[in-house]
Amino acid sequence: MNARVILYGVGAIGLETARAAAQRRDILLVGAIDTDPEKAGRDLGDLTGVDSLRGIAVSDQPAQVPAGTGPLVALLTTSSRLEQVFPQLEQLARAGVNVVSSCEELSFPWYHHPDWADRIHRLAQSHNVRILGTGVNPGFVLDELVVTMASVCSRVTRIEARRILDAGKRREPLQKKVGAGMAEAEFRDLVGRNALGHLGLAESVAYVAEGMGWKLDSISESTDPVISDRDVQTPYVKVSKGEVAGLRMIAVGKKGDAAVITLELQMYVGARRPVDEIYIEGEPSLRTRIPRGIPGDIATVAKLINSIPRVLQGEPGLLRPRS
Amino acid sequence: MNARVILYGVGAIGLETARAAAQRRDILLVGAIDTDPEKAGRDLGDLTGVDSLRGIAVSDQPAQVPAGTGPLVALLTTSSRLEQVFPQLEQLARAGVNVVSSCEELSFPWYHHPDWADRIHRLAQSHNVRILGTGVNPGFVLDELVVTMASVCSRVTRIEARRILDAGKRREPLQKKVGAGMAEAEFRDLVGRNALGHLGLAESVAYVAEGMGWKLDSISESTDPVISDRDVQTPYVKVSKGEVAGLRMIAVGKKGDAAVITLELQMYVGARRPVDEIYIEGEPSLRTRIPRGIPGDIATVAKLINSIPRVLQGEPGLLRPRS
Repeated sequence: MNARVILYGVGAIGLETARAAAQRRDILLVGAIDTDPEKAGRDLGDLTGVDSLRGIAVSDQPAQVPAGTGPLVALLTTSSRLEQVFPQLEQLARAGVNVVSSCEELSFPWYHHPDWADRIHRLAQSHNVRILGTGVNPGFVLDELVVTMASVCSRVTRIEARRILDAGKRREPLQKKVGAGMAEAEFRDLVGRNALGHLGLAESVAYVAEGMGWKLDSISESTDPVISDRDVQTPYVKVSKGEVAGLRMIAVGKKGDAAVITLELQMYVGARRPVDEIYIEGEPSLRTRIPRGIPGDIATVAKLINSIPRVLQGEPGLLRPRS
Repeated sequence: MNARVILYGVGAIGLETARAAAQRRDILLVGAIDTDPEKAGRDLGDLTGVDSLRGIAVSDQPAQVPAGTGPLVALLTTSSRLEQVFPQLEQLARAGVNVVSSCEELSFPWYHHPDWADRIHRLAQSHNVRILGTGVNPGFVLDELVVTMASVCSRVTRIEARRILDAGKRREPLQKKVGAGMAEAEFRDLVGRNALGHLGLAESVAYVAEGMGWKLDSISESTDPVISDRDVQTPYVKVSKGEVAGLRMIAVGKKGDAAVITLELQMYVGARRPVDEIYIEGEPSLRTRIPRGIPGDIATVAKLINSIPRVLQGEPGLLRPRS
């Protein structure tokens, strides 16, 4: 693909991205950015343990683009929130850098954040770059893959999809994010203050609706605790029976009173049957299962990398999902 | 989508397509073509049993395009072979009609039939139309879906996919096509003369290779009988224990000596565990299952219809799979 790639964000996902990119002959990693003072100046080889990445120092100066020729793409993995990534998108666009980002709210901003979507689209257009939000969840398993499966149905009346993952096998921040080890009251309090939960499920509902050509009347979302039925110990947290093991979120898209899209996400420590599954009711009805589910982190990294060719093609702007 | 649609071919798949299209508000069926003298002049309402299709007479004059304005798309379901559909593509292209076809060899002609692919591409370009070959198998379950799943893998070392379907639940021609009820010697004789088997598996291997960006050194294909372990009776055929129940085809794509893509198709009467499954070995490794498998005929019809918007967009020519 002959693109030069810059990492923006060298947290857990950013470093995994660097490791995966280092194995690919079609990617040339030319820079790394992080504004965390603890990371600025450090060597990407040291941070990743990958020898071939030695010599790339983490910069805290996003406006400085590496010298050289050929298109630049930044893999942006700094935040889940549009308001936090927007200034970073501005820096990159002004420097002529295309962007693929794992920012959850950027995966499908047109429904819940149309003003941001419009602003980002105009930003990209005015600087002649392309910006894409993607990932696995949101970005693939509960949206792109659902729409792909529906492409072999001549009529669809209802869609259900579910992702169940064992948070105990994931990173510490994810185990914390789902509330593992909390008392139920604390969990509900944090949910009430929007301080706990996973972003992107409602975005996936909007993505699926667009892919199906459906106009929804509402999208609603709920978050409840999964209470552990036994004691579970992970490397990062201990969950006693009766405590919160994690969360169960449901996002529902309705036409009138009919729930036509129902997406469910269970992320909890000790999940016994991790799976991704999609059910499409229609002509024909189809069930699709991915036993054990798609591993979130490494697959998100892959999706970012594999999306690079797309942001080097086509019209400048904020790229919409393909239908 | 505001396209006017013409059926070219009113065999089993063509009539199913008409029935599905009649249920869609976004499709306007304006004509039907079939050169079979037994079908010419007949009413599509009578042939399909669908009242809203009354008044559309089957024409045997492909060059006559219905009057009216707006883009035209033909759904071409006449043959599996390029040499047979080519004159039909010529008629349609000259009349300015875009084409979506279930012709198996057209699903990915660039590897096995590059001369035809080139000729069809130039034909479409010179008449400013778009031509697309698609379907379920080939066209989706063993190729497009495989490549879609691989989009969340940063590294892929090997791909296996398998489709097992119960031919006893399918149309009579399909039961005949797979050799159900034959003696093994007759089956092998017909395979040796290319008179029996399913077209498109090798096309799917080439499609997957292109989607993965892999250059293959060879694609090979084998066809063997599945011998029935019991007596099976379908509405169309009786298979005794020891007779041929159907076929098992394997197509293998190699890089050097390594089989990097292995696709398997089992179509036989009495199959006990119909399924579509995909295994991708890589980072991450992923297994995907569609229990009972995608129903071939109605899903192929859906794929044809759902591909109409694509042939109304983009550059004229023979459309390649999207990667």
